[in-house]
Amino acid sequence: MLYFDHNATHPLSATAKRVWLEAVERFPANASSPHRLGQRADAALQDARGRLAKMLGCGADEVVFTSGATEAANTVLAQFAGREVVISAIEHPCVRESVRASELRVSAAGVVDLAELKTQRPALVALMAANNETGVLQPWQAALALCRERGVPLFCDAVQWLGRLPAAGLGACDFVSGSAHKFGGPQGVGFLKCPRHFSPLLHGGPQEDGRRAGTENIAGVLAMVAALEEREAAMHGIAERLAWRGEFEQALGFRTLGAGVDRLWNTAAVVMPEPPDCRRRWVVVLDRLGFAVSTGSACASGKEKPSHVLTAMGLPPGEAARVLRFSAGWETTREDWQRLLAGVRAAQVEATPPSL
Amino acid sequence: MLYFDHNATHPLSATAKRVWLEAVERFPANASSPHRLGQRADAALQDARGRLAKMLGCGADEVVFTSGATEAANTVLAQFAGREVVISAIEHPCVRESVRASELRVSAAGVVDLAELKTQRPALVALMAANNETGVLQPWQAALALCRERGVPLFCDAVQWLGRLPAAGLGACDFVSGSAHKFGGPQGVGFLKCPRHFSPLLHGGPQEDGRRAGTENIAGVLAMVAALEEREAAMHGIAERLAWRGEFEQALGFRTLGAGVDRLWNTAAVVMPEPPDCRRRWVVVLDRLGFAVSTGSACASGKEKPSHVLTAMGLPPGEAARVLRFSAGWETTREDWQRLLAGVRAAQVEATPPSL
Repeated sequence: MLYFDHNATHPLSATAKRVWLEAVERFPANASSPHRLGQRADAALQDARGRLAKMLGCGADEVVFTSGATEAANTVLAQFAGREVVISAIEHPCVRESVRASELRVSAAGVVDLAELKTQRPALVALMAANNETGVLQPWQAALALCRERGVPLFCDAVQWLGRLPAAGLGACDFVSGSAHKFGGPQGVGFLKCPRHFSPLLHGGPQEDGRRAGTENIAGVLAMVAALEEREAAMHGIAERLAWRGEFEQALGFRTLGAGVDRLWNTAAVVMPEPPDCRRRWVVVLDRLGFAVSTGSACASGKEKPSHVLTAMGLPPGEAARVLRFSAGWETTREDWQRLLAGVRAAQVEATPPSL
Repeated sequence: MLYFDHNATHPLSATAKRVWLEAVERFPANASSPHRLGQRADAALQDARGRLAKMLGCGADEVVFTSGATEAANTVLAQFAGREVVISAIEHPCVRESVRASELRVSAAGVVDLAELKTQRPALVALMAANNETGVLQPWQAALALCRERGVPLFCDAVQWLGRLPAAGLGACDFVSGSAHKFGGPQGVGFLKCPRHFSPLLHGGPQEDGRRAGTENIAGVLAMVAALEEREAAMHGIAERLAWRGEFEQALGFRTLGAGVDRLWNTAAVVMPEPPDCRRRWVVVLDRLGFAVSTGSACASGKEKPSHVLTAMGLPPGEAARVLRFSAGWETTREDWQRLLAGVRAAQVEATPPSL
């Protein structure tokens, strides 16, 4: 099986697995317990916090570990309930469904338009670093500069960025969320970069300096941080990976979303030809041919309503219903992209009714 | 190191570790992804859901997986914000700090008094199955009968009960919370038994039938359910374990909290003699002698304010400050309890200033 669904979940990395296994042996206790076993677990947690903070470029006391990016985003937005919040029109559902907000438009290529921000002074702006469905990079650095000028806090959902592009600089945003399983860490763990004083979403314990109650997931956190460190240390070959994907897109010859703008090197969101008009069918046929691909956000793919991202980019429902997302990993080779190309062509033959 | 802090965290069981490792290999994808790798992960998740539901005695569609019991409790109580909620005075902070509630008194032995409930008809009653600091069992079955009569939903925090006493019957409660790391599963995963229709605390995805957004922690869930199944299948020898603890308590000769009432077989909460008046010192000395024990709730032990549980039981602050909690596991032997006894005696000698 060739796996082209890394934006949904990156399989657990060997490093993360090793660190997880070491952690459950070395730190079997509760990090809040007063004995040495507890204190050792806590020391490991604080060490991991410092290492993550260093990668982000923020203080260790600005990092709160969570169960994932959904919890992190919900935690941020709960702070601003009832206040004026501005988000991009292509934010992940964990942002847009957690708050009543006005939306910044995006271009047909899927890049947010910051012009409106210049006339606004909301309580919070939320802008993702890279879109999960298209891979299109968002101008979060420019948004941060604008927000700084106006004294507005910025929340950057960096879930798809982290592990693919350098984390450095993200820590300058007031809030940043990340999810371990998107970069080779385990599912069920993530983090929130946030201010030192902060009201929690989860109540009932002094953990995380009172910003997130609940027993700390030591092994999960240690594995997450190790996975990200490994990626940060080996972020080479982006240019060639962009080239491999470019070859694939060009040879395929279908419309690629965000083709003319900066995108993550791993993602190709392609408007497939009709028929078949149901992208589910593409997934099934490609699956049988040995390729795991997605119809877009895994989170939304359970239900077949038009993606808000594609809608915001101006795709009519008929086209949006034919978008497939191919998302590679660091281990994906040029040959893998070529195999995928051959696979899509074979699927096209197989999926097209003989009458056509 | 002899570990007597299972109420804080039960070290990961060998079964849970094996299942976790198998799961990350077999189910590397996102359970919401449309391809077979995703569908297989989802099938494994649904299988685990059914097995957990069977143990609890409820429908599979009444089980929602969470990041732990704190999230589960917060989720329940968020449903009832602004309404009349009655809780016991000894609920875990994840319940009492998540809601404004009136409290049911407990006896000096630490058992909740349900009399007041007979004259009330609140929107929700919350009663834990077994207290984390004392191990005292609460009459949740009687509370359930009372609530049923009056049409009031009952939330039972079963965190300390599960894995130590049979889960059967708990599923009859309207809400039940559990935490994997209390019975040998991994940290960072838990569950909530709840109604089929239910408004989520975490928004932004259709996972868990819209009741909890966020990518599912497949390996964590599978390891949790396997850990509980193993415990459920081997819940033998409770009488002898009660006897071993009884020998310890009697030989020790100090006051045991809840001595005359039903308690979990694994927990002994003991009022240590003075001096030293600081229980932290007991923990440190016992730690050096090779025993990991706790000052009470791990969640609260970071800060030295009097425990609300002990206060509710009528302990004056001076006594509450001297309570140690010894919490055993299934692997704890009679000899381990005897070693602990010898350890406490040695600690007493060491901890007592020579001038006395």
